[in-house]
Amino acid sequence: MRWIRYTADGRTAYGSLTCETVSEISGEPWGAHSATGKTHKLADVKLEVPVTPRTFYAAGINYAAHIREMAEKRGVQPVFPEKADIGYRANNALIAHGEDVVIPNDATEKINYEGELVVVIGTQVKHLSKADAMSCVFGYTIGNDVSERTWQRGDRTFWRGKNADTFKPMGPWIDTDVDIDAMQTIVRVNRQESLRFKTNDMIFDIPTYIEAMTRYLTLYPGDVIWMGTDGTSPDLKHGDVVEVELTGLGVLRNRFVREA
Amino acid sequence: MRWIRYTADGRTAYGSLTCETVSEISGEPWGAHSATGKTHKLADVKLEVPVTPRTFYAAGINYAAHIREMAEKRGVQPVFPEKADIGYRANNALIAHGEDVVIPNDATEKINYEGELVVVIGTQVKHLSKADAMSCVFGYTIGNDVSERTWQRGDRTFWRGKNADTFKPMGPWIDTDVDIDAMQTIVRVNRQESLRFKTNDMIFDIPTYIEAMTRYLTLYPGDVIWMGTDGTSPDLKHGDVVEVELTGLGVLRNRFVREA
Repeated sequence: MRWIRYTADGRTAYGSLTCETVSEISGEPWGAHSATGKTHKLADVKLEVPVTPRTFYAAGINYAAHIREMAEKRGVQPVFPEKADIGYRANNALIAHGEDVVIPNDATEKINYEGELVVVIGTQVKHLSKADAMSCVFGYTIGNDVSERTWQRGDRTFWRGKNADTFKPMGPWIDTDVDIDAMQTIVRVNRQESLRFKTNDMIFDIPTYIEAMTRYLTLYPGDVIWMGTDGTSPDLKHGDVVEVELTGLGVLRNRFVREA
Repeated sequence: MRWIRYTADGRTAYGSLTCETVSEISGEPWGAHSATGKTHKLADVKLEVPVTPRTFYAAGINYAAHIREMAEKRGVQPVFPEKADIGYRANNALIAHGEDVVIPNDATEKINYEGELVVVIGTQVKHLSKADAMSCVFGYTIGNDVSERTWQRGDRTFWRGKNADTFKPMGPWIDTDVDIDAMQTIVRVNRQESLRFKTNDMIFDIPTYIEAMTRYLTLYPGDVIWMGTDGTSPDLKHGDVVEVELTGLGVLRNRFVREA
Protein backbone atom coordinates (compact mmCIF):
# COMPACT_ATOMS: atom_id res chain seq x y z
CA MET A 1 0.00 0.00 0.00
CA ARG A 2 1.22 3.51 -0.85
CA TRP A 3 0.20 6.51 1.25
CA ILE A 4 0.63 10.10 0.24
CA ARG A 5 0.16 13.33 2.10
CA TYR A 6 -1.15 15.98 -0.27
CA THR A 7 -2.98 19.23 -0.68
CA ALA A 8 -6.02 19.52 -2.95
CA ASP A 9 -8.81 22.09 -2.93
CA GLY A 10 -6.98 24.00 -0.19
CA ARG A 11 -6.95 21.05 2.20
CA THR A 12 -4.06 18.81 3.32
CA ALA A 13 -4.84 15.15 4.02
CA TYR A 14 -3.52 11.62 3.75
CA GLY A 15 -4.72 9.31 1.03
CA SER A 16 -4.01 5.87 -0.32
CA LEU A 17 -2.65 5.70 -3.84
CA THR A 18 -3.84 3.04 -6.27
CA CYS A 19 -2.53 3.42 -9.81
CA GLU A 20 -3.11 7.14 -10.37
CA THR A 21 -6.05 7.53 -7.96
CA VAL A 22 -5.77 9.08 -4.50
CA SER A 23 -8.45 8.02 -1.98
CA GLU A 24 -8.63 10.45 0.94
CA ILE A 25 -8.70 9.22 4.54
CA SER A 26 -9.45 11.02 7.78
CA GLY A 27 -6.58 10.73 10.27
CA GLU A 28 -3.13 9.29 9.72
CA PRO A 29 -2.36 5.97 7.99
CA TRP A 30 -0.72 4.50 11.14
CA GLY A 31 -3.60 5.50 13.41
CA ALA A 32 -7.37 5.15 13.44
CA HIS A 33 -8.62 6.32 10.07
CA SER A 34 -11.40 5.79 7.58
CA ALA A 35 -12.00 6.53 3.92
CA THR A 36 -13.85 9.78 3.36
CA GLY A 37 -15.07 8.69 -0.08
CA LYS A 38 -13.32 11.64 -1.73
CA THR A 39 -10.90 10.81 -4.59
CA HIS A 40 -8.48 12.78 -6.76
CA LYS A 41 -6.23 12.05 -9.70
CA LEU A 42 -2.58 11.99 -8.58
CA ALA A 43 -1.75 14.61 -11.23
CA ASP A 44 -4.24 17.03 -9.64
CA VAL A 45 -2.79 17.11 -6.12
CA LYS A 46 0.31 18.74 -4.63
CA LEU A 47 2.51 16.23 -2.84
CA GLU A 48 3.52 17.28 0.69
CA VAL A 49 6.26 16.00 3.00
CA PRO A 50 4.83 12.57 3.96
CA VAL A 51 5.17 13.25 7.70
CA THR A 52 6.60 15.90 10.03
CA PRO A 53 8.17 13.60 12.61
CA ARG A 54 8.03 14.16 16.34
CA THR A 55 11.76 13.32 16.30
CA PHE A 56 13.86 13.14 13.13
CA TYR A 57 16.56 10.48 13.46
CA ALA A 58 19.44 9.84 11.05
CA ALA A 59 22.00 7.03 11.10
CA GLY A 60 24.51 9.17 9.24
CA ILE A 61 27.52 6.93 8.69
CA ASN A 62 26.26 3.45 7.82
CA TYR A 63 27.84 2.25 4.53
CA ALA A 64 31.47 1.21 4.00
CA ALA A 65 32.16 2.78 0.58
CA HIS A 66 30.81 6.17 1.76
CA ILE A 67 33.22 6.16 4.69
CA ARG A 68 36.20 5.10 2.53
CA GLU A 69 35.49 7.59 -0.27
CA MET A 70 34.73 10.52 2.08
CA ALA A 71 37.97 9.83 3.99
CA GLU A 72 39.89 9.73 0.70
CA LYS A 73 38.40 13.10 -0.36
CA ARG A 74 39.56 14.60 2.93
CA GLY A 75 42.95 12.87 2.94
CA VAL A 76 42.38 11.07 6.23
CA GLN A 77 42.15 7.42 7.31
CA PRO A 78 38.61 5.94 7.17
CA VAL A 79 36.99 5.37 10.57
CA PHE A 80 34.21 2.79 10.70
CA PRO A 81 31.55 3.04 13.40
CA GLU A 82 31.83 0.48 16.20
CA LYS A 83 28.14 0.56 17.09
CA ALA A 84 24.74 1.74 15.88
CA ASP A 85 24.88 5.33 17.18
CA ILE A 86 21.99 7.47 16.03
CA GLY A 87 21.95 11.22 15.29
CA TYR A 88 19.39 13.91 14.51
CA ARG A 89 18.24 16.11 11.69
CA ALA A 90 15.82 19.09 11.94
CA ASN A 91 12.22 19.46 10.76
CA ASN A 92 12.76 23.01 9.45
CA ALA A 93 14.82 21.51 6.61
CA LEU A 94 12.12 19.16 5.24
CA ILE A 95 10.69 19.75 1.76
CA ALA A 96 8.48 17.61 -0.47
CA HIS A 97 9.11 15.82 -3.75
CA GLY A 98 9.19 18.42 -6.52
CA GLU A 99 10.14 21.38 -4.32
CA ASP A 100 13.45 23.22 -4.80
CA VAL A 101 16.54 22.79 -2.65
CA VAL A 102 17.71 26.39 -2.12
CA ILE A 103 21.48 26.67 -1.61
CA PRO A 104 22.22 29.62 0.76
CA ASN A 105 24.05 32.41 -1.07
CA ASP A 106 27.15 32.13 1.14
CA ALA A 107 27.47 28.35 0.76
CA THR A 108 30.55 26.98 -1.01
CA GLU A 109 30.42 24.81 -4.13
CA LYS A 110 30.63 21.68 -1.96
CA ILE A 111 26.90 20.88 -2.14
CA ASN A 112 26.31 17.11 -2.20
CA TYR A 113 23.39 14.71 -2.31
CA GLU A 114 23.01 11.61 -0.11
CA GLY A 115 20.25 9.22 -1.26
CA GLU A 116 18.77 7.34 1.68
CA LEU A 117 16.16 4.80 2.69
CA VAL A 118 13.84 6.29 5.33
CA VAL A 119 12.07 4.09 7.90
CA VAL A 120 8.68 5.43 9.09
CA ILE A 121 7.62 4.29 12.57
CA GLY A 122 4.00 3.19 13.07
CA THR A 123 3.66 2.35 16.77
CA GLN A 124 4.91 3.68 20.11
CA VAL A 125 7.65 1.33 21.34
CA LYS A 126 10.50 1.04 23.82
CA HIS A 127 12.90 -1.80 24.70
CA LEU A 128 12.46 -3.77 21.48
CA SER A 129 14.74 -6.74 20.87
CA LYS A 130 16.34 -7.16 17.47
CA ALA A 131 13.93 -10.05 16.80
CA ASP A 132 10.89 -7.80 17.44
CA ALA A 133 12.35 -4.57 16.04
CA MET A 134 10.55 -4.59 12.70
CA SER A 135 7.16 -4.73 14.43
CA CYS A 136 7.23 -0.94 14.88
CA VAL A 137 7.99 -0.16 11.22
CA PHE A 138 4.99 1.18 9.31
CA GLY A 139 6.68 1.68 5.95
CA TYR A 140 9.42 3.36 3.98
CA THR A 141 10.06 6.52 2.04
CA ILE A 142 13.06 8.20 0.39
CA GLY A 143 15.30 10.97 1.71
CA ASN A 144 18.05 13.16 0.24
CA ASP A 145 20.39 14.21 3.07
CA VAL A 146 21.71 17.33 1.27
CA SER A 147 25.01 18.51 2.76
CA GLU A 148 27.30 21.54 2.52
CA ARG A 149 30.60 19.79 3.24
CA THR A 150 32.63 22.75 4.52
CA TRP A 151 29.92 23.78 7.01
CA GLN A 152 29.40 20.13 7.99
CA ARG A 153 32.99 19.94 9.25
CA GLY A 154 32.71 23.00 11.49
CA ASP A 155 29.08 23.17 12.59
CA ARG A 156 27.94 21.89 15.94
CA THR A 157 25.57 18.95 15.21
CA PHE A 158 25.58 19.93 11.51
CA TRP A 159 23.01 22.67 12.14
CA ARG A 160 23.70 24.53 8.87
CA GLY A 161 25.72 21.97 6.91
CA LYS A 162 22.86 19.48 6.89
CA ASN A 163 19.85 21.39 8.24
CA ALA A 164 19.60 24.70 6.38
CA ASP A 165 16.01 25.20 5.15
CA THR A 166 15.19 22.88 2.17
CA PHE A 167 18.21 20.56 2.77
CA LYS A 168 16.02 17.53 3.60
CA PRO A 169 13.81 16.48 0.67
CA MET A 170 11.61 13.52 1.72
CA GLY A 171 8.99 11.60 -0.27
CA PRO A 172 7.23 11.15 -2.60
CA TRP A 173 5.13 8.68 -0.54
CA ILE A 174 5.24 6.02 2.15
CA ASP A 175 5.18 2.44 0.88
CA THR A 176 4.30 -0.34 3.33
CA ASP A 177 5.20 -3.28 1.06
CA VAL A 178 8.70 -3.12 -0.35
CA ASP A 179 11.47 -5.73 -0.49
CA ILE A 180 14.46 -4.06 1.18
CA ASP A 181 16.77 -6.96 0.29
CA ALA A 182 16.07 -6.64 -3.44
CA MET A 183 16.19 -2.84 -3.43
CA GLN A 184 18.83 -0.74 -5.18
CA THR A 185 19.48 2.94 -4.49
CA ILE A 186 20.10 4.86 -7.72
CA VAL A 187 20.95 8.57 -7.86
CA ARG A 188 20.71 10.54 -11.12
CA VAL A 189 21.89 14.10 -11.78
CA ASN A 190 20.13 15.66 -14.77
CA ARG A 191 18.92 12.18 -15.78
CA GLN A 192 22.47 10.70 -15.84
CA GLU A 193 23.10 7.89 -13.38
CA SER A 194 25.66 9.07 -10.85
CA LEU A 195 25.54 6.42 -8.10
CA ARG A 196 24.07 2.95 -7.55
CA PHE A 197 24.31 0.69 -4.51
CA LYS A 198 22.45 -2.14 -2.78
CA THR A 199 20.14 -0.39 -0.32
CA ASN A 200 20.39 -3.00 2.43
CA ASP A 201 24.21 -3.20 2.30
CA MET A 202 24.34 -1.30 5.59
CA ILE A 203 27.01 -1.68 8.27
CA PHE A 204 24.25 -1.90 10.93
CA ASP A 205 20.82 -2.98 9.69
CA ILE A 206 17.44 -1.56 10.66
CA PRO A 207 16.73 -4.03 13.52
CA THR A 208 20.17 -3.34 15.02
CA TYR A 209 19.48 0.41 15.04
CA ILE A 210 15.97 0.02 16.46
CA GLU A 211 17.18 -2.30 19.25
CA ALA A 212 20.02 0.11 20.16
CA MET A 213 17.80 3.21 20.05
CA THR A 214 14.81 1.82 21.96
CA ARG A 215 17.00 0.73 24.84
CA TYR A 216 17.11 4.43 25.77
CA LEU A 217 14.34 6.16 23.87
CA THR A 218 10.71 5.79 22.91
CA LEU A 219 9.86 5.78 19.21
CA TYR A 220 6.51 7.38 18.34
CA PRO A 221 4.22 6.95 15.31
CA GLY A 222 5.44 9.22 12.53
CA ASP A 223 9.07 9.30 13.73
CA VAL A 224 11.52 8.73 10.88
CA ILE A 225 14.95 7.10 10.78
CA TRP A 226 17.14 7.98 7.77
CA MET A 227 19.47 5.02 7.25
CA GLY A 228 22.54 6.68 5.67
CA THR A 229 24.06 6.51 2.20
CA ASP A 230 26.84 4.81 0.29
CA GLY A 231 29.33 6.30 -2.18
CA THR A 232 29.86 10.01 -2.78
CA SER A 233 28.34 12.85 -4.77
CA PRO A 234 29.65 15.31 -7.34
CA ASP A 235 29.37 18.97 -6.35
CA LEU A 236 25.90 20.13 -7.38
CA LYS A 237 25.26 23.49 -9.01
CA HIS A 238 22.38 25.87 -9.74
CA GLY A 239 19.81 24.19 -11.96
CA ASP A 240 20.83 20.57 -11.33
CA VAL A 241 17.94 18.13 -10.91
CA VAL A 242 18.66 15.24 -8.54
CA GLU A 243 16.59 12.05 -8.52
CA VAL A 244 16.94 9.46 -5.77
CA GLU A 245 15.29 6.21 -6.83
CA LEU A 246 14.76 3.29 -4.48
CA THR A 247 13.75 0.47 -6.81
CA GLY A 248 10.25 -0.78 -6.09
CA LEU A 249 9.53 2.26 -3.91
CA GLY A 250 9.68 5.34 -6.12
CA VAL A 251 11.66 8.40 -7.18
CA LEU A 252 12.31 11.56 -5.13
CA ARG A 253 13.09 14.45 -7.50
CA ASN A 254 14.26 17.96 -6.55
CA ARG A 255 15.91 20.80 -8.40
CA PHE A 256 18.84 22.65 -6.78
CA VAL A 257 18.85 26.46 -7.07
CA ARG A 258 21.18 29.02 -5.53
CA GLU A 259 19.59 31.68 -3.29
CA ALA A 260 19.50 35.08 -5.04
CA MET B 1 1.02 36.54 31.39
CA ARG B 2 1.65 32.91 32.33
CA TRP B 3 0.44 30.07 30.11
CA ILE B 4 0.26 26.45 31.14
CA ARG B 5 -0.47 23.29 29.22
CA TYR B 6 -2.35 20.89 31.42
CA THR B 7 -4.66 17.90 31.65
CA ALA B 8 -7.91 18.05 33.58
CA ASP B 9 -11.01 15.91 33.28
CA GLY B 10 -9.19 13.73 30.73
CA ARG B 11 -8.52 16.63 28.36
CA THR B 12 -5.25 18.45 27.55
CA ALA B 13 -5.46 22.18 26.80
CA TYR B 14 -3.69 25.50 27.22
CA GLY B 15 -4.83 27.96 29.83
CA SER B 16 -3.78 31.29 31.26
CA LEU B 17 -2.75 31.30 34.90
CA THR B 18 -3.79 34.11 37.23
CA CYS B 19 -2.89 33.56 40.86
CA GLU B 20 -4.03 29.97 41.34
CA THR B 21 -6.75 29.96 38.67
CA VAL B 22 -6.35 28.37 35.22
CA SER B 23 -8.61 29.77 32.46
CA GLU B 24 -8.84 27.38 29.53
CA ILE B 25 -8.40 28.58 25.95
CA SER B 26 -9.06 26.90 22.64
CA GLY B 27 -5.96 26.76 20.44
CA GLU B 28 -2.40 27.73 21.34
CA PRO B 29 -1.36 30.91 23.16
CA TRP B 30 0.77 32.11 20.18
CA GLY B 31 -1.99 31.50 17.65
CA ALA B 32 -5.65 32.38 17.25
CA HIS B 33 -7.37 31.42 20.48
CA SER B 34 -10.28 32.35 22.69
CA ALA B 35 -11.33 31.72 26.26
CA THR B 36 -13.66 28.75 26.61
CA GLY B 37 -15.04 30.02 29.92
CA LYS B 38 -13.89 26.86 31.72
CA THR B 39 -11.68 27.38 34.81
CA HIS B 40 -9.77 25.12 37.18
CA LYS B 41 -7.74 25.53 40.34
CA LEU B 42 -4.01 25.09 39.57
CA ALA B 43 -3.82 22.40 42.27
CA ASP B 44 -6.47 20.33 40.45
CA VAL B 45 -4.69 20.04 37.07
CA LYS B 46 -1.73 17.97 35.90
CA LEU B 47 0.96 20.15 34.35
CA GLU B 48 2.17 18.94 30.92
CA VAL B 49 5.27 19.83 28.90
CA PRO B 50 4.42 23.42 27.83
CA VAL B 51 5.04 22.66 24.14
CA THR B 52 6.31 19.83 21.93
CA PRO B 53 8.43 21.87 19.54
CA ARG B 54 8.55 21.30 15.81
CA THR B 55 12.34 21.63 16.22
CA PHE B 56 14.13 21.52 19.59
CA TYR B 57 17.20 23.79 19.53
CA ALA B 58 19.90 24.04 22.21
CA ALA B 59 22.82 26.46 22.44
CA GLY B 60 24.80 23.99 24.52
CA ILE B 61 28.03 25.82 25.36
CA ASN B 62 27.19 29.45 26.15
CA TYR B 63 28.60 30.43 29.59
CA ALA B 64 32.25 30.96 30.48
CA ALA B 65 32.37 29.35 33.93
CA HIS B 66 30.71 26.16 32.61
CA ILE B 67 33.37 25.82 29.91
CA ARG B 68 36.24 26.48 32.36
CA GLU B 69 34.92 24.12 35.06
CA MET B 70 34.01 21.31 32.64
CA ALA B 71 37.49 21.52 31.05
CA GLU B 72 39.08 21.40 34.52
CA LYS B 73 37.02 18.27 35.42
CA ARG B 74 38.28 16.59 32.23
CA GLY B 75 41.89 17.84 32.58
CA VAL B 76 41.88 19.71 29.25
CA GLN B 77 42.25 23.36 28.18
CA PRO B 78 38.96 25.29 27.98
CA VAL B 79 37.77 26.06 24.44
CA PHE B 80 35.41 29.00 24.06
CA PRO B 81 32.99 29.10 21.11
CA GLU B 82 33.89 31.57 18.37
CA LYS B 83 30.33 31.99 17.11
CA ALA B 84 26.71 31.30 17.99
CA ASP B 85 26.48 27.71 16.69
CA ILE B 86 23.22 25.99 17.55
CA GLY B 87 22.58 22.31 18.23
CA TYR B 88 19.61 19.99 18.74
CA ARG B 89 17.90 17.98 21.41
CA ALA B 90 15.14 15.38 20.92
CA ASN B 91 11.42 15.51 21.75
CA ASN B 92 11.32 11.93 23.07
CA ALA B 93 13.29 13.15 26.12
CA LEU B 94 10.83 15.87 27.23
CA ILE B 95 9.01 15.50 30.56
CA ALA B 96 6.90 17.94 32.56
CA HIS B 97 7.44 19.64 35.91
CA GLY B 98 6.89 17.07 38.65
CA GLU B 99 7.65 14.00 36.54
CA ASP B 100 10.60 11.71 37.33
CA VAL B 101 13.93 11.70 35.49
CA VAL B 102 14.62 7.98 35.04
CA ILE B 103 18.35 7.16 34.90
CA PRO B 104 18.90 4.13 32.60
CA ASN B 105 20.13 1.13 34.59
CA ASP B 106 23.43 0.95 32.68
CA ALA B 107 24.25 4.66 33.11
CA THR B 108 27.30 5.60 35.18
CA GLU B 109 27.17 7.79 38.30
CA LYS B 110 28.03 10.85 36.18
CA ILE B 111 24.44 12.15 35.99
CA ASN B 112 24.39 15.98 36.01
CA TYR B 113 21.81 18.75 35.86
CA GLU B 114 22.07 21.85 33.65
CA GLY B 115 19.59 24.62 34.56
CA GLU B 116 18.66 26.66 31.49
CA LEU B 117 16.54 29.54 30.25
CA VAL B 118 14.31 28.37 27.39
CA VAL B 119 13.13 30.77 24.67
CA VAL B 120 9.71 29.91 23.16
CA ILE B 121 9.15 31.16 19.59
CA GLY B 122 5.80 32.76 18.75
CA THR B 123 5.94 33.60 15.05
CA GLN B 124 7.31 32.09 11.83
CA VAL B 125 10.44 34.03 10.88
CA LYS B 126 13.53 33.91 8.70
CA HIS B 127 16.38 36.39 8.08
CA LEU B 128 15.90 38.41 11.27
CA SER B 129 18.49 41.04 12.11
CA LYS B 130 19.82 41.26 15.65
CA ALA B 131 17.77 44.45 16.11
CA ASP B 132 14.54 42.65 15.17
CA ALA B 133 15.38 39.27 16.67
CA MET B 134 13.31 39.56 19.82
CA SER B 135 10.14 40.15 17.77
CA CYS B 136 9.72 36.39 17.29
CA VAL B 137 10.02 35.53 21.00
CA PHE B 138 6.68 34.63 22.60
CA GLY B 139 7.94 33.93 26.11
CA TYR B 140 10.22 31.87 28.33
CA THR B 141 10.22 28.68 30.29
CA ILE B 142 12.79 26.60 32.23
CA GLY B 143 14.75 23.54 31.11
CA ASN B 144 17.01 21.01 32.81
CA ASP B 145 19.46 19.64 30.23
CA VAL B 146 20.15 16.38 32.12
CA SER B 147 23.38 14.73 30.95
CA GLU B 148 25.19 11.42 31.39
CA ARG B 149 28.76 12.69 31.01
CA THR B 150 30.47 9.47 29.92
CA TRP B 151 27.91 8.80 27.16
CA GLN B 152 28.01 12.49 26.17
CA ARG B 153 31.69 12.16 25.25
CA GLY B 154 31.20 9.13 22.99
CA ASP B 155 27.70 9.47 21.54
CA ARG B 156 27.08 10.90 18.11
CA THR B 157 25.07 14.14 18.63
CA PHE B 158 24.60 13.19 22.29
CA TRP B 159 21.74 10.84 21.40
CA ARG B 160 21.84 8.91 24.70
CA GLY B 161 24.01 11.18 26.86
CA LYS B 162 21.53 14.03 26.63
CA ASN B 163 18.42 12.56 24.97
CA ALA B 164 17.54 9.34 26.78
CA ASP B 165 13.81 9.36 27.64
CA THR B 166 13.04 11.77 30.55
CA PHE B 167 16.39 13.64 30.26
CA LYS B 168 14.75 16.93 29.25
CA PRO B 169 12.41 18.32 31.96
CA MET B 170 10.76 21.54 30.71
CA GLY B 171 8.26 23.80 32.46
CA PRO B 172 6.34 24.53 34.61
CA TRP B 173 4.83 27.22 32.38
CA ILE B 174 5.56 29.85 29.72
CA ASP B 175 5.88 33.41 31.02
CA THR B 176 5.63 36.27 28.50
CA ASP B 177 6.70 39.08 30.88
CA VAL B 178 9.99 38.43 32.60
CA ASP B 179 13.06 40.62 33.05
CA ILE B 180 15.95 38.55 31.67
CA ASP B 181 18.52 41.11 32.81
CA ALA B 182 17.42 40.92 36.44
CA MET B 183 17.04 37.14 36.42
CA GLN B 184 19.17 34.70 38.38
CA THR B 185 19.38 30.96 37.75
CA ILE B 186 19.40 29.00 40.99
CA VAL B 187 19.70 25.21 41.21
CA ARG B 188 18.89 23.31 44.39
CA VAL B 189 19.48 19.63 45.14
CA ASN B 190 17.26 18.34 47.94
CA ARG B 191 16.45 21.98 48.87
CA GLN B 192 20.14 22.93 49.27
CA GLU B 193 21.40 25.62 46.91
CA SER B 194 24.00 24.08 44.64
CA LEU B 195 24.52 26.72 41.92
CA ARG B 196 23.61 30.35 41.24
CA PHE B 197 24.44 32.54 38.25
CA LYS B 198 23.18 35.58 36.36
CA THR B 199 20.89 34.14 33.68
CA ASN B 200 21.77 36.68 31.00
CA ASP B 201 25.54 36.35 31.51
CA MET B 202 25.73 34.44 28.20
CA ILE B 203 28.67 34.43 25.80
CA PHE B 204 26.24 35.01 22.90
CA ASP B 205 22.89 36.55 23.80
CA ILE B 206 19.46 35.60 22.51
CA PRO B 207 19.39 38.13 19.60
CA THR B 208 22.82 36.96 18.43
CA TYR B 209 21.64 33.35 18.32
CA ILE B 210 18.36 34.21 16.57
CA GLU B 211 20.14 36.30 13.93
CA ALA B 212 22.70 33.54 13.28
CA MET B 213 20.08 30.79 13.16
CA THR B 214 17.51 32.56 10.97
CA ARG B 215 20.09 33.30 8.32
CA TYR B 216 19.77 29.61 7.37
CA LEU B 217 16.61 28.29 9.00
CA THR B 218 12.99 29.18 9.60
CA LEU B 219 11.81 29.34 13.19
CA TYR B 220 8.20 28.21 13.73
CA PRO B 221 5.71 28.98 16.52
CA GLY B 222 6.32 26.58 19.38
CA ASP B 223 10.00 25.98 18.56
CA VAL B 224 12.22 26.23 21.63
CA ILE B 225 15.83 27.37 22.08
CA TRP B 226 17.56 26.22 25.26
CA MET B 227 20.22 28.84 26.04
CA GLY B 228 22.85 26.78 27.91
CA THR B 229 24.04 26.74 31.51
CA ASP B 230 26.84 28.06 33.69
CA GLY B 231 28.86 26.27 36.38
CA THR B 232 28.81 22.52 37.01
CA SER B 233 26.72 19.92 38.81
CA PRO B 234 27.42 17.33 41.48
CA ASP B 235 26.73 13.73 40.43
CA LEU B 236 23.06 13.07 41.12
CA LYS B 237 21.79 9.85 42.67
CA HIS B 238 18.55 7.91 43.08
CA GLY B 239 16.04 9.93 45.07
CA ASP B 240 17.61 13.38 44.56
CA VAL B 241 15.13 16.18 43.88
CA VAL B 242 16.46 18.93 41.61
CA GLU B 243 14.87 22.36 41.41
CA VAL B 244 15.84 24.86 38.72
CA GLU B 245 14.56 28.32 39.65
CA LEU B 246 14.67 31.27 37.28
CA THR B 247 13.84 34.22 39.51
CA GLY B 248 10.63 35.93 38.45
CA LEU B 249 9.72 33.00 36.20
CA GLY B 250 9.23 29.94 38.38
CA VAL B 251 10.65 26.66 39.62
CA LEU B 252 11.05 23.42 37.63
CA ARG B 253 11.19 20.47 40.05
CA ASN B 254 11.95 16.83 39.18
CA ARG B 255 13.01 13.80 41.16
CA PHE B 256 15.79 11.55 39.82
CA VAL B 257 15.26 7.79 40.09
CA ARG B 258 17.34 4.92 38.75
CA GLU B 259 15.63 2.49 36.38
CA ALA B 260 14.89 -0.86 38.10
